[in-house]
Amino acid sequence: MIDLLCGRIKKLGAPVVVGLDPQMAFIPGHLQQAAYREYGETLEGAAEAVWQFNKGIVDAVCDLVPAVKPQIAMYEQLGIPGLAVYKRTVDYCKEKGLIVIGDVKRGDIGSTAAAYAAGHLGRVQVGSRLIAPMDEDFVTVNPYLGTDGIKPFADVCKECRKGIFVLVKTSNPSSGEFQDRLIDGRPLYELVGEQVSAWGADLIGPEYGYSAVGAVVGATYPEIGRVLRKQMPRTFILVPGYGAQGGRGADLVHYFNEDGLGAIVNSSRGIIAAYRQEAYGRFGEEHFDEAARQAALDMIADIRTALEQAG
Amino acid sequence: MIDLLCGRIKKLGAPVVVGLDPQMAFIPGHLQQAAYREYGETLEGAAEAVWQFNKGIVDAVCDLVPAVKPQIAMYEQLGIPGLAVYKRTVDYCKEKGLIVIGDVKRGDIGSTAAAYAAGHLGRVQVGSRLIAPMDEDFVTVNPYLGTDGIKPFADVCKECRKGIFVLVKTSNPSSGEFQDRLIDGRPLYELVGEQVSAWGADLIGPEYGYSAVGAVVGATYPEIGRVLRKQMPRTFILVPGYGAQGGRGADLVHYFNEDGLGAIVNSSRGIIAAYRQEAYGRFGEEHFDEAARQAALDMIADIRTALEQAG
Repeated sequence: MIDLLCGRIKKLGAPVVVGLDPQMAFIPGHLQQAAYREYGETLEGAAEAVWQFNKGIVDAVCDLVPAVKPQIAMYEQLGIPGLAVYKRTVDYCKEKGLIVIGDVKRGDIGSTAAAYAAGHLGRVQVGSRLIAPMDEDFVTVNPYLGTDGIKPFADVCKECRKGIFVLVKTSNPSSGEFQDRLIDGRPLYELVGEQVSAWGADLIGPEYGYSAVGAVVGATYPEIGRVLRKQMPRTFILVPGYGAQGGRGADLVHYFNEDGLGAIVNSSRGIIAAYRQEAYGRFGEEHFDEAARQAALDMIADIRTALEQAG
Repeated sequence: MIDLLCGRIKKLGAPVVVGLDPQMAFIPGHLQQAAYREYGETLEGAAEAVWQFNKGIVDAVCDLVPAVKPQIAMYEQLGIPGLAVYKRTVDYCKEKGLIVIGDVKRGDIGSTAAAYAAGHLGRVQVGSRLIAPMDEDFVTVNPYLGTDGIKPFADVCKECRKGIFVLVKTSNPSSGEFQDRLIDGRPLYELVGEQVSAWGADLIGPEYGYSAVGAVVGATYPEIGRVLRKQMPRTFILVPGYGAQGGRGADLVHYFNEDGLGAIVNSSRGIIAAYRQEAYGRFGEEHFDEAARQAALDMIADIRTALEQAG
C-alpha cells in the first residue's frame, strides 16, 4: 500500500491529502436543511448532511489528489449514524480510486490493539468467514503505550498490505508539553521517531523504498521536520497543519527526500471549507465543491513550486 | 459523576469495575451458534452474540459492582453492527444502575478532541436540538498531545457532570519504553500525573473530594502506584491489569487513600471469561454468567480483605 501511495503521488505530482473533517459548521445550509427535511433533526439527519457534503468534496477532488484522510471523530460525534457515514465515505472514496487514511489515532495494547488493527485494516473471523469491517488503507496510531500498542498493527500491515502513521510530533501548540521533553539530552519525539523506524524496518516497500510504518509530524514545526526527515530516511511522513494551522509550502520542503517523496501534506478545512474563506468567497456556499477543487489546485501548486525551488 | 461513583463504591463496599471486553473467543459456542442461525455468519450475527453475552454478564453482576468498562475496540472490530451493540450495552448498563466507563482511549486536539468529548460525554447540536450520542459517564483519554487534547474533555466534564481517566502508566510490559523515561530526573509518567492533577484541579466533587479528571495506572506496577497515589491525592485512579495481567489485591492497597477510596480496580477476562478458568470450570460454558458472578464476588472479597489487612 505504501508503494501504491508513492506511485499515485508521483503520477499526480501531488503529495497532498484532503482531510474529510466535516464539522457541522462547515456544511452549507442548503445541505443541512434538505437532510433535516428528510430525516428530521436527528443524528440520521446530521449524518446524511455530512454524507452529501463529503460526496460533493470527493467528486470535486478525486482526480487531483492521491488520498483522503477522514477524521473519525467528526463522524463518531454523531453516534452510530455518523459512524455508518464514515464507513460509507471510506467505501465511496475507494470506489473513486482514492487511498484512504483513517485518522483514528487509536492506541491500546495486546488483544485490544489487535482488535483495532483487525477492525480497521485487517479482517475478523466471523464463524467460518473472514470479513474486513472498516477496511481503510492506512490508519493513524498513538505511540504512548509503546511497542505493545504498535506490533499488532504492524502484523496486520504485513499480512494485509496496509500501512499506519504513528504520532511522533503533533501540530498543536501544546504538543511540546510531553513530546519535546528531553530524555538523555534528546526530545521524546526523537525517541519515538527512532522506534517508528525500528517498528517499520521489515516492512519496506520494494518499489520506492519506504516503510508501511510511517510517522505524523506537524507542519507547524518545520525545524523538527528537518531533523526527523534525516533521522528516519525510509519513513513516510504524514504532515498535518497546512493552511488553517499555519503551515505553508515553503516551510515543508525539508519533510521531503531528494526523490520528491517521503511526505504527504494534509489540509482539511483549508480545502473542504474553502468557500468560507475570502479567497474563495466568489464561489458561494452553493458551490462549496468548486471552491474545494480550486483550493486543492492552489495547494498542490504551492507545494510543487516550493519543491521545485528547493530542488 | 465522580461523587456518584464514590458513593456507589462505598455503598457496595466494592471498588471494582467489570471490563466488558467481549473477544469472540470468550463467547460461549451456544450463543454464537444461535446468533449465526438468526443473522448468518455476518458482522450482525457476531454483534448479536456479543450482545447476548454482555446481557448475561451484566444481569449477573449488576447488583455487586458500581461500574462497568466496555472496551470499545472489541465492538469497533465488528464494524458498524459492533458499534451499535456498544451503544446498546452502554444504555442497558445505565438502565441497570451501573456507571459506564467507556474505555475508548481517544486522544486528539482542538476541534477534534471537542468532537470526541461531545460525542461520548456531551451533547451535539443537531439543527435546533441537542442530542447526547453515546452518553457514557466516563471515558479514558490519551495524554500524548498535551493540554490541547484534554481541555475539551475537561470542559464537557464540567458542563455535563461527567468524568475522564487519563492514561498515566499503563499495565503492559512495554509501557516503560516512553512512560518511564527520565526527564530532569523524573519519569514521564510523573510529569503526566502532575498535569492530570492540574487539569482536574477545578473539577473536585464536593462530597468526597475527588476530581472528575482521574488517571489510569496499571495494577502491574504497584510501586509506581504508591508514588502516584501520594503525588495526586485528589485524583481517582482506574487500575487495569488485575487478574489475567498479574495484579492481586494485596499489591493494590497503595493505590487507595485512607478513606478507602481513590481507586477502582478493573478485571475483564478474569470475570467475563471466568468459566474458562479451572477455578470456575464447574459452572460450565452454559453458565458463563454464574461463573462471572462468582469471580466478581471473589475479586471483591480479595480486595476488601487486602484493604482491611492494610488498614
